[in-house]
Amino acid sequence: MPTQGEMKAALQAYINAYNAGDLDGIVKLYAADCQVEDPVGNSAMKGPAAVREFYQGAFATGAKLRVTAGPNGSHGNSAAMAFEAVLPNGAYVRVIDVMTFNDAGKFSSMKAYWGPEDFVQP
Amino acid sequence: MPTQGEMKAALQAYINAYNAGDLDGIVKLYAADCQVEDPVGNSAMKGPAAVREFYQGAFATGAKLRVTAGPNGSHGNSAAMAFEAVLPNGAYVRVIDVMTFNDAGKFSSMKAYWGPEDFVQP
Repeated sequence: MPTQGEMKAALQAYINAYNAGDLDGIVKLYAADCQVEDPVGNSAMKGPAAVREFYQGAFATGAKLRVTAGPNGSHGNSAAMAFEAVLPNGAYVRVIDVMTFNDAGKFSSMKAYWGPEDFVQP
Repeated sequence: MPTQGEMKAALQAYINAYNAGDLDGIVKLYAADCQVEDPVGNSAMKGPAAVREFYQGAFATGAKLRVTAGPNGSHGNSAAMAFEAVLPNGAYVRVIDVMTFNDAGKFSSMKAYWGPEDFVQP
């Protein structure tokens, strides 16, 4: 199991890679058998190719992430953080991400909690 | 499935009941078959009696909750929020809670993401 520090560093690396538009940097944080549910309630994307396509679309929106709480660890293989995904026009969506980790410190799963009412207009 | 508004109201009711020391108010937010993992990684507490005992202990610490992000909804039956649980001496722990709901709008599960390194001394 990764340490608390390793999990928090991975979440920070995720934010940094996202904001740098670094697609390879994001994808390499994920395990080969990863599942991504973003938003929670939609069907899960599975594996690095699906993840890559998802972030390609996300980057195309021009959104940048601004952390508002965490990253927090846990007493297990999970970590979580809250952030705002800010669009170029200033609108943003409030998101809480929960990642679980495999023994190699890669994300086994990511779940993003945000709903249709979590958009804030500029 | 509860609406986004109903889930957010339930999370706010949880914060209010906690800060009022209202044990009945907290317990009645939970389903009869609920599971609570606080912190995530510890074994789950199951059912209202275990939940009541857990919050009795939490209230005894004198902690009060200060929301820092959310509550957020989802595109399913889940909601999440970030808060700080502040002890009387000013120390606090950073927490992210994820609740899932049953069709009656009660918490089926609560998972609290905080680790040994999420304590902040005053």
